Amino acid sequence: MDSAEPTSSSMQTAPRAARRAVGEALDEYFELDPAFVEDVAAALRTGDRDRVRGMVGELHYADMADLLERLDQEDRRLLVDAIRESFNPDVLPELATEVRDEVMDALGFEDLAYALRELDSDDAVYVAGKLDPAEREQLLARMPPDSRKLIEQGLAYGESSAGRLAQRELVAVPAYWTVGETIDFLRSGRKTPEKFYAVFVVDPRHRPIGVVELHRVLKAKRPEFMRDLIDPEIDLIPTDMDREEVAYLFRQRDLAAAPVVDKSGRLIGQITIDDVVDIIEEEAGADILKMAGVRAEEDASLYRNIMSTAQSRFIWLVINLATAFLAASVIGVFEDSIAKLSALAVLMPICASMGGNAGTQTLATVIRSLATRELNAGNVFRVAWKEFFIGTINGFLFAFITGIFAFVWFKDILLGVVIGLAMITNMVAASLSGMAIPVVLEKMGADPADSAVVFLTTVTDCVGFFTFLGLATWILL
Amino acid sequence: MDSAEPTSSSMQTAPRAARRAVGEALDEYFELDPAFVEDVAAALRTGDRDRVRGMVGELHYADMADLLERLDQEDRRLLVDAIRESFNPDVLPELATEVRDEVMDALGFEDLAYALRELDSDDAVYVAGKLDPAEREQLLARMPPDSRKLIEQGLAYGESSAGRLAQRELVAVPAYWTVGETIDFLRSGRKTPEKFYAVFVVDPRHRPIGVVELHRVLKAKRPEFMRDLIDPEIDLIPTDMDREEVAYLFRQRDLAAAPVVDKSGRLIGQITIDDVVDIIEEEAGADILKMAGVRAEEDASLYRNIMSTAQSRFIWLVINLATAFLAASVIGVFEDSIAKLSALAVLMPICASMGGNAGTQTLATVIRSLATRELNAGNVFRVAWKEFFIGTINGFLFAFITGIFAFVWFKDILLGVVIGLAMITNMVAASLSGMAIPVVLEKMGADPADSAVVFLTTVTDCVGFFTFLGLATWILL
Repeated sequence: MDSAEPTSSSMQTAPRAARRAVGEALDEYFELDPAFVEDVAAALRTGDRDRVRGMVGELHYADMADLLERLDQEDRRLLVDAIRESFNPDVLPELATEVRDEVMDALGFEDLAYALRELDSDDAVYVAGKLDPAEREQLLARMPPDSRKLIEQGLAYGESSAGRLAQRELVAVPAYWTVGETIDFLRSGRKTPEKFYAVFVVDPRHRPIGVVELHRVLKAKRPEFMRDLIDPEIDLIPTDMDREEVAYLFRQRDLAAAPVVDKSGRLIGQITIDDVVDIIEEEAGADILKMAGVRAEEDASLYRNIMSTAQSRFIWLVINLATAFLAASVIGVFEDSIAKLSALAVLMPICASMGGNAGTQTLATVIRSLATRELNAGNVFRVAWKEFFIGTINGFLFAFITGIFAFVWFKDILLGVVIGLAMITNMVAASLSGMAIPVVLEKMGADPADSAVVFLTTVTDCVGFFTFLGLATWILL
Repeated sequence: MDSAEPTSSSMQTAPRAARRAVGEALDEYFELDPAFVEDVAAALRTGDRDRVRGMVGELHYADMADLLERLDQEDRRLLVDAIRESFNPDVLPELATEVRDEVMDALGFEDLAYALRELDSDDAVYVAGKLDPAEREQLLARMPPDSRKLIEQGLAYGESSAGRLAQRELVAVPAYWTVGETIDFLRSGRKTPEKFYAVFVVDPRHRPIGVVELHRVLKAKRPEFMRDLIDPEIDLIPTDMDREEVAYLFRQRDLAAAPVVDKSGRLIGQITIDDVVDIIEEEAGADILKMAGVRAEEDASLYRNIMSTAQSRFIWLVINLATAFLAASVIGVFEDSIAKLSALAVLMPICASMGGNAGTQTLATVIRSLATRELNAGNVFRVAWKEFFIGTINGFLFAFITGIFAFVWFKDILLGVVIGLAMITNMVAASLSGMAIPVVLEKMGADPADSAVVFLTTVTDCVGFFTFLGLATWILL
């Protein structure tokens, strides 16, 4: 112990020194410092590869991925060349799709095949899944048969399925093993994954009968049986379960790892909580983008080129143009009224706009509740009533406010009454459609976030213009 | 081994039986079956508490929380009474705020104080933090001094800070300990948390010098020193780090657990990956809601009462009403033009609407990239240029399409030209503001998702109406 103490205190400073070395690259928020990126780019252009390697050698793979993303195309290629020998395969899954394509090109098939072999199977499947089929074939042909088979098996499952996500590397032990036998097996280093959170206990046919998180293995005494450490309940994930379902299950059950089983109930892989973190981040982010009419996560990538980004947004805008013309045609019906009383044109966007905003509030709340499963068959009518009341309450309040303002502006009390009545109608319509549209979309098997906003604004624009201009024509003219 | 085999095969069926028992309550997606909720409600109303306890006894705490949420107020109170003796404290953090308030009321201070003592410190702090100060005082007064102190320490940190999130229970060992000593310590059961992912290695002043994930402890041989298992780099989380930063760090570094340190660098707690899952889900969800004008996660709760929901949405709608009147006043400037040519009123919402939609696409992409830190000081100008080009390309395309349609509809070629020019202007303005608004908001220290949409639609409405009506007045009249 006497000899250990000094070592211990010298250890104290080691990590801090390491942090300092890496600290040059990272700012206080653990992000890459723009000045560091500049320095690396400058060093790359001088062709001083040793200096570059010295600068980036200590970088965590996620920071290396960030660095590659922030360099321009030419420097990116130079950096890959410089670090080719020591390239960490874990960088690949961290990269944005477009940047990854370039990095993989720069690596070439030989080095890429090597990198893929070193990755965990789920990451290798993910990276291979993003290649086009011809490239994938060429790549797989260069891999050893066993790695190749694992990747091909993973790719056989649907893109957002548990089978695709599953990592094949896992620790499974028979129920009759003791904790001691399990620890001895792990210490032997035979076929253990690089990182794991739990040990799966399986029956003789390799069907999982329980999951033992590592802290329970560590707290148990050596002679205890693994079968006595498992939970009475086990959550089996079929290969075709959707990744959103998987994420829900992990959150709901506070799981660290769960077994993925094939149709015969055999353990074919595991999903771990760190994968779930990525799923949740992507799915929730995708909902924001979809609501705004940006279809896929990839369309939102900053690294995608201008033409394909413009093109992907174009489609959504065409749909919106169609609904804008529909709303215009509603106004067109009342063109004569507007010609007689131009104040109508001034005030008419107000009802439509307020309806759109109130409806979007409801819509976002409902889409969110559907995603977290707070909203379901058991409470959908209660929530619909609630939204109806909220729409009515705010409808009356804004009818009053807007009516007063319209009266003061145009000195016409009836105009105030008309806009007030239109406001109530449109805000109630907005609440009800904001509620109904995503629920119906989900019921039909569609994604509620995907096209809900178009439907909603079509309703609120048309109802808004029609009630205001219609009432005005009837009451005022 | 002979004697172990039969036990092993009898174990095989046990979990499946358990799944069946719980299976009555859950549907295929691991969600509570509405029929089960009905059955429990019916049993509660007959007053047959034993039957109720039999029905819900096997439920996971997260499912129990769902059940409590789905029952109505009266049944909720009955259920709490029925399960009071066996109430699982882990249910509390899973509940929606409003439901939790009711459940805590029904439990009463004595039972609640007991429940809080049983919770992990981070969960206890979370639950206590949601109480109003007077209730919290009464509750803390009933707790033993040590539990009370832990909670008070946690509450002293800001609501979204790492200090508030940190769990005080953790495993810390000196650097000179061996793996064998560490395992023996864990087996002794002294002061070990219920669940943990890593062992923290600390210096004599209790400052963390490394984190060892459990799989590394299990793979190492007994005589190895803990100091030899740590990573050279360690990510220390200061107590005032924001929870979004914490989540970013966990994702970026693939961490399972990280040490939270006070100003003197001493280890005061840990944050674990399962907390991060919740943070990510909440933060990404909050962005969707904020973009739609629903301020806080709590405002989106389905369990919040109608009046306070209506009130919280009212404020956002008032701001929108102001911008709608601003846009109306822009139209008002051109009232005479509209009186002369009522076709202007029919077509004018089209430009404004397309600008709003194109701008929202950019806005959502930018807000998302800021949240994932893909967008930063290093590439903001490159991305701004890209958005400018996309806006221009789509602006020209839609200018052409809309111009043709307007010409066909109103048989006026100049009207088509005017709407085309206005479309280009507004779509470029939309792209640039969609880019600039969230970036500037973030730069000013505001939340980019929070008020970006109001600013954006103010720009696109005003620019859309002004350019269309202005050009029309200048060219057509």
